[in-house]
Amino acid sequence: MGRVTERRKVLRIRDGAVSTRPDTLVAEEPLEIRLNGKPLAITMRTPGDDFALAAGFLVSEGVLATASDLQNIVYCAGATVDGSNTYNVVDVRTTPGIALPDFTLERNVYTSSSCGLCGKASLDAVRTTARWPIADTPPVRVTPELLASLPDRLRAAQRVFDRTGGLHAAALFTEDGELLDIREDVGRHNAVDKLVGRALQNGDLPLSRTILLVSGRASFELAQKAVMAGIPVLAAVSAPSSLAVDLAAETGLTLVGFLRGSSMNVYAGEDRIALRAAAAQG
Amino acid sequence: MGRVTERRKVLRIRDGAVSTRPDTLVAEEPLEIRLNGKPLAITMRTPGDDFALAAGFLVSEGVLATASDLQNIVYCAGATVDGSNTYNVVDVRTTPGIALPDFTLERNVYTSSSCGLCGKASLDAVRTTARWPIADTPPVRVTPELLASLPDRLRAAQRVFDRTGGLHAAALFTEDGELLDIREDVGRHNAVDKLVGRALQNGDLPLSRTILLVSGRASFELAQKAVMAGIPVLAAVSAPSSLAVDLAAETGLTLVGFLRGSSMNVYAGEDRIALRAAAAQG
Repeated sequence: MGRVTERRKVLRIRDGAVSTRPDTLVAEEPLEIRLNGKPLAITMRTPGDDFALAAGFLVSEGVLATASDLQNIVYCAGATVDGSNTYNVVDVRTTPGIALPDFTLERNVYTSSSCGLCGKASLDAVRTTARWPIADTPPVRVTPELLASLPDRLRAAQRVFDRTGGLHAAALFTEDGELLDIREDVGRHNAVDKLVGRALQNGDLPLSRTILLVSGRASFELAQKAVMAGIPVLAAVSAPSSLAVDLAAETGLTLVGFLRGSSMNVYAGEDRIALRAAAAQG
Repeated sequence: MGRVTERRKVLRIRDGAVSTRPDTLVAEEPLEIRLNGKPLAITMRTPGDDFALAAGFLVSEGVLATASDLQNIVYCAGATVDGSNTYNVVDVRTTPGIALPDFTLERNVYTSSSCGLCGKASLDAVRTTARWPIADTPPVRVTPELLASLPDRLRAAQRVFDRTGGLHAAALFTEDGELLDIREDVGRHNAVDKLVGRALQNGDLPLSRTILLVSGRASFELAQKAVMAGIPVLAAVSAPSSLAVDLAAETGLTLVGFLRGSSMNVYAGEDRIALRAAAAQG
């Protein structure tokens, strides 16, 4: 439980020279998330922060919106033949009386993430289920210089990546660029869920004055998670997908991609980017 | 349907200079995979090669093993309110009489990918469901030099990545390093499914004399897909996870990570790596 890395023996080949040495790997284990006792989803994740991961996942799915929606989260024993606790099954119990989305039997939560089966319908689904529409009043305004400084702060705070090279990271910053929280995981979506779940547990939702930075690419799923948590700015080190851009445009999310050095692309919500008056229009 | 990229307007910021220009993005749309009419899974994928993707996905899930298991694959109309065809729903019909795994109602295919809820049980599940155990006779033998040459061949063959920066790639090579096929997708697992599905359709399973190269990391899921297709060598440009290494060790898969320049780490199945007699033991 909670091992973020594991050691394995590896045959190392460098320019024809061969050696055997121990290597540190990112740990990956399945986590089953149950909702009020009923299996809902399984994700392959790096152990640790499992309760935050489960809570954040359920924010993305429109189940939880505030700490008061959550009664408690427990590890389930008895999922194995010998009844032992693998710490790979968590049950999230919601406060009695809160409204739950309809998860039908044949279509599990993966369906609800993208239930429309076309981009348009997927966007509709997010728009209608968002319990924290992006509502930053007054609007968050960030300079390109501030955005450009975030990836270095993310990397400086990443602890495991340097050892394994196998982790994605997600970090939450204030609108002034102060690092609030950082999570690492073998899956980028899990790292974001862990951030959002922790915020829910702390009573910090909606995250309406924050910037979410993710290593790598910005998929539809990550943009959806930002929107569901009320985050107004999502920045990615690499490329966004078409559907992520469409979702951002429809929901008012500021989406920044290819954030490298002093360069970046703004794909949506450019009103939150504070450009200098002197900036040349090319 | 079939759009691999889409165009969007982007605000480009370079060292304080701002311009507006069109940008090419990788297309992302949901695909629902049905098995004999019953919804089984939804994946966010780059449109194109959808039938191969569905077929390859079902190879990974132990449903299909040969072209004769497959009756046909069709796009489903009528998934939208107006009855139009979104080309985002495919139905895979299996040949009558073939044995199908038990997909229970409450636990969909994501469960079956990692049903044990601990690494050990996940490994067991793969071992017992693999219809193409890795069986390369005589064993495939590859030199580090040949492996080191593959990433450049992959990049040379990648068509969309240069334009969008948003695609993962997977390529299949012969044991002599000849490129057999390459697929790109917003999801790395989809790229591998497309490769494997195409091989199934062509009657080329098991892929017992091939090398699978993936951009980025090697997760459990990718190692599982290699094993289910009978592929003996999986090489990744970046890090593997602990569970990917464990699966490789248990199934006899050769797993190479951090394949960069003339360097690489061999995590499992090192008997397939042809080391020079002169190589120093460090």
